[in-house]
Amino acid sequence: MNFASDNTGPAHPAIMQALVAANAGHAASYGGDDLMAQVRARVRELFEAPEAAVYLVATGTAANALSLATLAQPWETIFCARTAHVHEDEANAPEFFTGGAKLTLVDAPDGRMTAERLRAVIAAQEGRGIHSPKRGPVSVTETTETGTTYGPARLRALLAVARAQGLPVHLDGARLANALAFSGAAPADLTWRAGVDVASLGGTKDGCPGVEIVVLFDPARGEEFEYRRKRAGHLFSKHRYLSAQALAWLEGGLWLDLARRANGAAAHLAGGLRDKGIEIIFPVEANLVFFNAPRALHRHLMAQGADYHLWGGSLDGPDPDEILAARLACDWSADEAMIARFLGLI
Amino acid sequence: MNFASDNTGPAHPAIMQALVAANAGHAASYGGDDLMAQVRARVRELFEAPEAAVYLVATGTAANALSLATLAQPWETIFCARTAHVHEDEANAPEFFTGGAKLTLVDAPDGRMTAERLRAVIAAQEGRGIHSPKRGPVSVTETTETGTTYGPARLRALLAVARAQGLPVHLDGARLANALAFSGAAPADLTWRAGVDVASLGGTKDGCPGVEIVVLFDPARGEEFEYRRKRAGHLFSKHRYLSAQALAWLEGGLWLDLARRANGAAAHLAGGLRDKGIEIIFPVEANLVFFNAPRALHRHLMAQGADYHLWGGSLDGPDPDEILAARLACDWSADEAMIARFLGLI
Amino acid sequence: MNFASDNTGPAHPAIMQALVAANAGHAASYGGDDLMAQVRARVRELFEAPEAAVYLVATGTAANALSLATLAQPWETIFCARTAHVHEDEANAPEFFTGGAKLTLVDAPDGRMTAERLRAVIAAQEGRGIHSPKRGPVSVTETTETGTTYGPARLRALLAVARAQGLPVHLDGARLANALAFSGAAPADLTWRAGVDVASLGGTKDGCPGVEIVVLFDPARGEEFEYRRKRAGHLFSKHRYLSAQALAWLEGGLWLDLARRANGAAAHLAGGLRDKGIEIIFPVEANLVFFNAPRALHRHLMAQGADYHLWGGSLDGPDPDEILAARLACDWSADEAMIARFLGLI
Amino acid sequence: MNFASDNTGPAHPAIMQALVAANAGHAASYGGDDLMAQVRARVRELFEAPEAAVYLVATGTAANALSLATLAQPWETIFCARTAHVHEDEANAPEFFTGGAKLTLVDAPDGRMTAERLRAVIAAQEGRGIHSPKRGPVSVTETTETGTTYGPARLRALLAVARAQGLPVHLDGARLANALAFSGAAPADLTWRAGVDVASLGGTKDGCPGVEIVVLFDPARGEEFEYRRKRAGHLFSKHRYLSAQALAWLEGGLWLDLARRANGAAAHLAGGLRDKGIEIIFPVEANLVFFNAPRALHRHLMAQGADYHLWGGSLDGPDPDEILAARLACDWSADEAMIARFLGLI
Repeated sequence: MNFASDNTGPAHPAIMQALVAANAGHAASYGGDDLMAQVRARVRELFEAPEAAVYLVATGTAANALSLATLAQPWETIFCARTAHVHEDEANAPEFFTGGAKLTLVDAPDGRMTAERLRAVIAAQEGRGIHSPKRGPVSVTETTETGTTYGPARLRALLAVARAQGLPVHLDGARLANALAFSGAAPADLTWRAGVDVASLGGTKDGCPGVEIVVLFDPARGEEFEYRRKRAGHLFSKHRYLSAQALAWLEGGLWLDLARRANGAAAHLAGGLRDKGIEIIFPVEANLVFFNAPRALHRHLMAQGADYHLWGGSLDGPDPDEILAARLACDWSADEAMIARFLGLI
Repeated sequence: MNFASDNTGPAHPAIMQALVAANAGHAASYGGDDLMAQVRARVRELFEAPEAAVYLVATGTAANALSLATLAQPWETIFCARTAHVHEDEANAPEFFTGGAKLTLVDAPDGRMTAERLRAVIAAQEGRGIHSPKRGPVSVTETTETGTTYGPARLRALLAVARAQGLPVHLDGARLANALAFSGAAPADLTWRAGVDVASLGGTKDGCPGVEIVVLFDPARGEEFEYRRKRAGHLFSKHRYLSAQALAWLEGGLWLDLARRANGAAAHLAGGLRDKGIEIIFPVEANLVFFNAPRALHRHLMAQGADYHLWGGSLDGPDPDEILAARLACDWSADEAMIARFLGLI
Repeated sequence: MNFASDNTGPAHPAIMQALVAANAGHAASYGGDDLMAQVRARVRELFEAPEAAVYLVATGTAANALSLATLAQPWETIFCARTAHVHEDEANAPEFFTGGAKLTLVDAPDGRMTAERLRAVIAAQEGRGIHSPKRGPVSVTETTETGTTYGPARLRALLAVARAQGLPVHLDGARLANALAFSGAAPADLTWRAGVDVASLGGTKDGCPGVEIVVLFDPARGEEFEYRRKRAGHLFSKHRYLSAQALAWLEGGLWLDLARRANGAAAHLAGGLRDKGIEIIFPVEANLVFFNAPRALHRHLMAQGADYHLWGGSLDGPDPDEILAARLACDWSADEAMIARFLGLI
Repeated sequence: MNFASDNTGPAHPAIMQALVAANAGHAASYGGDDLMAQVRARVRELFEAPEAAVYLVATGTAANALSLATLAQPWETIFCARTAHVHEDEANAPEFFTGGAKLTLVDAPDGRMTAERLRAVIAAQEGRGIHSPKRGPVSVTETTETGTTYGPARLRALLAVARAQGLPVHLDGARLANALAFSGAAPADLTWRAGVDVASLGGTKDGCPGVEIVVLFDPARGEEFEYRRKRAGHLFSKHRYLSAQALAWLEGGLWLDLARRANGAAAHLAGGLRDKGIEIIFPVEANLVFFNAPRALHRHLMAQGADYHLWGGSLDGPDPDEILAARLACDWSADEAMIARFLGLI
């Protein structure tokens, strides 16, 4: 019963097969492989962005930090949700890659920044001219860290705040597939048509061993991204193994199918928990379920083999009745039996 | 009627005379001058720290950023007040000098962090191991940005939180002289005896053209500081002109006299304002006075030649009755006549 | 006839099978997988270093830059061969990861620094104290970029120069397997017993899709390496796919077999070229062959489908008789037929 | 007899008087002072550059590193003479300020790069695309570190190489005044008319306590420079003391007079040495004299109170007859008596 993360499950077998299939003969290195040309064409088509610059890296932190460094100057500040992965989970990667830009945090109780809050925080970050950091890019996450999604309309409204200030926008799309599966929107609607300049589309949490697609809608940013990727050690020599993952994942809509499966598992889990009177904290719109339960129940579940993370708080506290929040993450492989077993323990 | 900043007034004439006097004949460069040896001895004596490493730089931002870089690793986060100069007024200098460390902000409504708040923020910054920044130094400001002071007991209690976690402590002492003048404490009581590892003692805001003394109580940190100072362009070739300032400023307690004068002027101002029914926002413990007044009054004062800064808000708003906060900064040269003229306008 | 690089060939099938096999069920992420525990144990055994800290990354540039950043301070200079990959082929990655350290170059006509040259360059880099960079680590490459090897005795003699100065040592082992296959030495003899502090053992150029093993012989350096890896985006969430590569590659000495095959192919090529009167530039001790040939011959070979890189110079020059140097790189998959075909064209 | 550096002598009294005179009343901080407006106007007139952005900093390293950071991307390499101050004497400041750019060295036996050498080095730095640093700015020093000058024609010819490649140009003008005094050229002829984008004009080595003028001929670069200066701690709050130095130094051509005096002293020294059969190493075109003499003579001179630096080599060697090079630096205050005394010792 592993709900610890969407990175603890296996890759989809079709992707592993594609890796094996890609392993024949010689191939040009450093992104010059034929498979990458196919990935590029496929991604441009998918995003309705025939000119976009398209790159692959292996980790979400690399995708985010390289994208932010391409958008932000070292003397700027990046606006993001207080819960953003780029702030909380990357050990200062944005600060490192940008050469010392700052992150200015926007409260986002359910994971989503609101236009009002973003506007207010941007407005507050100005009055000192050269003394305080200049306003830099807005970084938004879709699906958010709490499993909620913006959807096209809300995202467009949020990013209009950035556009009005002339600020560029980065989208952390480590779980963009889940948000697209939930809303049914076109990829363009959650990216460039909503005001995004650089987006990632994450394969790693959605059935790949490790690949993230970075899309720069203004191809003029491409050269800088390429130099930054290389000097950060994120340009793969045997690049075909990234390309093959991405291509198989995009093939026939597999990426969306996997995201739908993960979303479905989460919905199933959330429904089951609600049926048992467990409080679900955030709307379940993707593959993450946050719930409240007494410490004693968490202990019981984990003792029986359930693997998941508390969201703050500690299993070791004295009071068995204290309510602790927790996160369940479903990947594409989370099956009925596992979910039923988990729900059965409650 | 210039209350815009404690950096708009003149230097004390004795310090200018010392500059002129230092300008005779040849002197060793890069800190090898005889005056610097005297400064070093005098500072060690003053701080009761016979082994301390002592350096001079010309700006407060240099003093802070170099000190923090010596204490923090790039993958750490620095804890400081939300209002701290290192966060708000240095255009990402700490992020730059540390190679990308983060600043984690502690609410400090009156400018002072409390032990409880600092403890809570440090505690919250931990659970993700390698994924989030490691806990790094605590940076504290004395006098704070709002003109309040910690004083020895409160500072010791606050920094005990850092010591308990094994975190090093930086003290931004751009206005340390004012705090020492207010409390009458020994310099050691507001620095190493309270738990400070590296402190600055600022001359620039207290009557010097531009000199900040940095004291590293552990001399083993000295070599790193020296290399960092040099590669940041902050090692002066004609160093004697920094030394001469510092020496004349320390001579005969001039530095404390000047701080007392500035504090006295602020107390006078605050008293006069209170007498006229104006609300003073923070305890006036140093050379800064924050007060609330209607927009119309601010307009009147500035139209009559008073020079000071609003603390948020804008003179241009529509409502003449809206209450706006403002800051008055007094330097040593703020004289009775100027203050009387200002108060007379209200 | 692809001799363009040792990164254009396929991975060994056994390693692909291991990847597929690793793709079953759930596994702890971020290096907590069981396979990594096995890799760690195997590497420690192989290097006779039971305490060593062992990490995996996906690219050679990441391995080098992270290792150098762990050894060098930003105000230091790194000593390396003028031809070193860290200088020539990493787009300033060492400068980026170290926060601005310098690289000081040592002439190495056949790819190998000599003790005399290294000593002289280190000696020359000193006289200015704080004004010039401090002496930092020595970075050595085994197999060198020109396909020569140091071997244990020569390496020990070279690194004695660093040890005498108290300078730490990094070994770029992107092709260390080839050097070990050539000399028959124990891994410890080409690393810690010769004076190396941090070494990489590269799988990518030796039959893996993309994995580099970093070994820090002083485990106290491990925590810093882990934070640096994370903030550089080089910690893989689905780490099992790095572990599985490394484990299969080490299993049963496959790594050495593959290196021997590649070395054998290069020896065969070099012999064949010599038989045809072609000048071989450097001793062929690993999997690289450098040779001189007239422009016209290079044109002929490439026109017939041979893929390799000139070593300086351009195919487009006017003089068909001009002698141009070129590099042939053999990977484990370079077979007899391909080599025979190539030699047959001459 | 202090010839150790042009930074060991006193400032000119007129400049000290200007400092004292500037110390009256209040003045806007951070460069908003009236004196700075005058400096800006005067510098623009002097350089025949009515649109140029003009800034002041206190050290030559700050001027150089900030300028280079404005011109170079982190993934580029800067071309400069092997003897350049930015390479040898700034403890990696360019690498720090640029975020990790590299310096590629051009041999310059007499301190001057030649167009041929620069062209060859630039040409050699290309072939690897994204793998090696991109070609970045050329940094040239006038007066060079060896006391030679380019003069307008030679400089224009050299920089044509950079222009032909589309590379921007930085001029380290720490001793630009001496070169202008020597050649009689207009400041524009040694800067923008010769192809320079950003130049410094150094006051510190020419009679000021510490001020360097940075001129960006394309004012569009100004905002970036301002942010970089601020976040590097090089924006002075009490800026009037920088402005006052610069203004007094420029007033009535004092800056050129002082440079002429220093140049004259060096010429006198060199002539005297030649008369005594001492070999002068480089053409004496500014205020530096390099000469060869046996170790025994150096020992004698220093024992008698002469203060200067050997140029490589050590006073402590065993052979009294070994010829050692040395540098004599003259500042404006080097008087006849001091020079006569020195020559008398030989």
